[in-house]
Amino acid sequence: MTRTVLESKSKTVAIGFDDPFCVIGERINPTGRKKLAAELEAGDFSTVEKDALEQVACGAMVLDVNAGVVYNSNPNPNETEPPLMRKMIELVQGLVDVPLCIDSSVPGALEAGLEVAEGRPLVNSVTGEEERLERVLPLVKKYNVPVVAISNDDSGISEDPDVRFAVAKKIVERAADFGIPAHDIVVDPLVMPIGAMASAGQQVFALVRKLRDELGVNTTCGASNISFGLPHRHGINAAFLPMAIGAGMTSAIMNPVRPVEMEAVRAANLLMNHDDNGTEWIKFARVLDAVGEGTPFPEASKAASAAGSGRGGRRRRRG
Amino acid sequence: MTRTVLESKSKTVAIGFDDPFCVIGERINPTGRKKLAAELEAGDFSTVEKDALEQVACGAMVLDVNAGVVYNSNPNPNETEPPLMRKMIELVQGLVDVPLCIDSSVPGALEAGLEVAEGRPLVNSVTGEEERLERVLPLVKKYNVPVVAISNDDSGISEDPDVRFAVAKKIVERAADFGIPAHDIVVDPLVMPIGAMASAGQQVFALVRKLRDELGVNTTCGASNISFGLPHRHGINAAFLPMAIGAGMTSAIMNPVRPVEMEAVRAANLLMNHDDNGTEWIKFARVLDAVGEGTPFPEASKAASAAGSGRGGRRRRRG
Repeated sequence: MTRTVLESKSKTVAIGFDDPFCVIGERINPTGRKKLAAELEAGDFSTVEKDALEQVACGAMVLDVNAGVVYNSNPNPNETEPPLMRKMIELVQGLVDVPLCIDSSVPGALEAGLEVAEGRPLVNSVTGEEERLERVLPLVKKYNVPVVAISNDDSGISEDPDVRFAVAKKIVERAADFGIPAHDIVVDPLVMPIGAMASAGQQVFALVRKLRDELGVNTTCGASNISFGLPHRHGINAAFLPMAIGAGMTSAIMNPVRPVEMEAVRAANLLMNHDDNGTEWIKFARVLDAVGEGTPFPEASKAASAAGSGRGGRRRRRG
Repeated sequence: MTRTVLESKSKTVAIGFDDPFCVIGERINPTGRKKLAAELEAGDFSTVEKDALEQVACGAMVLDVNAGVVYNSNPNPNETEPPLMRKMIELVQGLVDVPLCIDSSVPGALEAGLEVAEGRPLVNSVTGEEERLERVLPLVKKYNVPVVAISNDDSGISEDPDVRFAVAKKIVERAADFGIPAHDIVVDPLVMPIGAMASAGQQVFALVRKLRDELGVNTTCGASNISFGLPHRHGINAAFLPMAIGAGMTSAIMNPVRPVEMEAVRAANLLMNHDDNGTEWIKFARVLDAVGEGTPFPEASKAASAAGSGRGGRRRRRG
């Protein structure tokens, strides 16, 4: 069975066909977050710290770290991203003990992150574009790490799932030429918004199944894309995640601080028989109880894991 | 593509591989509802009326009618159920215009229901038990109606999904001997509680796919069984339904008055490309908005369908 092994300094997380769904926290990313971008340029890392702690408390098993901010003072990301990535990786791994996902379109930033990351981080990402393949795969090989492979190439993102499959296959083959095994490739089949393409859901479910059956690879996605532009997005996301998991999807880059989506993932784990004795579900039900009583989700999650680990958390008694 | 056609006096509903998931409302059933049972014995049908109207308002496409009450004054259901079934069917079809599902383990009650039901109701159910096959299939043939086939036989309910598949196959074959086509059989593969059997979810998903691929039949289930005995059952049900739909399940006997499960079904319809232009989802999002503002789900649903049909419902303006 395919397993992609990630490591932090002391923790191992496997993405795999027989493992619980791997939630990769997406929050540490200044793209579309102006306030965070401004903070980073000013050297203020308080939001990064908060996002790291909250996401892990809420159940993120891996944290994505993206340093893609364009400074007002220097608009060249090839100069600014590598040192910022280094700094953010060092900061986050000093705070939380989960494997990291080094996320950049700047190869220099990927390498800077790889130089300082402890354990076995996930590189995010390579695509089927020639220049990216030639630049990123050697890094992946050099550091012996797994990589996210996004199914677009020099011709862009195809709406045809067969083309996206072919791109994924090409990346897996090129990786093999570099000595990188298929179990270290996590394919992102690209999730289109269902509001723009009515077949987007069925496409992804079929693609995930095919990627798994024919290429033997793990898969990931930006889950919330599916609901872009539609009302009550959480409801769509919360149905999409279990359906994708049922089709064989093994991880997603998503916001773990939203209880609706995390409830869907945890219920799907239970239904896939990836939650022994329902232990995780029963623990999570207590978190939902607390959220129902008005406690914010991150706090409720923190309290539950403190109670669970016996590290001095308050235990609640049933009256 | 397999389609099971149900009819009321003037409405047609198809259960099918290419149709929206068919929600069969389960509420009109005195089993485990002491108050309703007592009312029925006393000739009070007010709860039946309320349940009929509410379920249809909330989105039930078919209503299950079960008259399985054991009277204190006469403990023989073979005597009491047939006239009660007749009365309940007449009452319900006088109130709402959706196809009915005549639900009884008493063959005389099934026949009484069939005698008075308008259109093309669904018979619920036959099993693989010899006596039931011999008693129910002739009725199904005589009235030319579809039937729910439950995958247990004289040896009981098997925990082995291969045995349950074999029982379903036997029923389909026996029905064929009576001249009943496979597209008029809706198989219930039997959903076990995941709290008692950790593989229950995966079993059902695999069985549904196999029933569809190999026997070409529609499927249904008592969806909430999956979460029996566990906390936060709605969360489990709301992940189970999309996963089952993704695996190919085409209907469920369920409580349509619960917004969480109905949200999951409607989102899954959208994701299966069974909701043209997302029209149903967008309409339902308005219902969820109203529920979020404190309106009970049945009322919010009623208001939305009145507004949608232009039959004098109040239209809300955004402030």
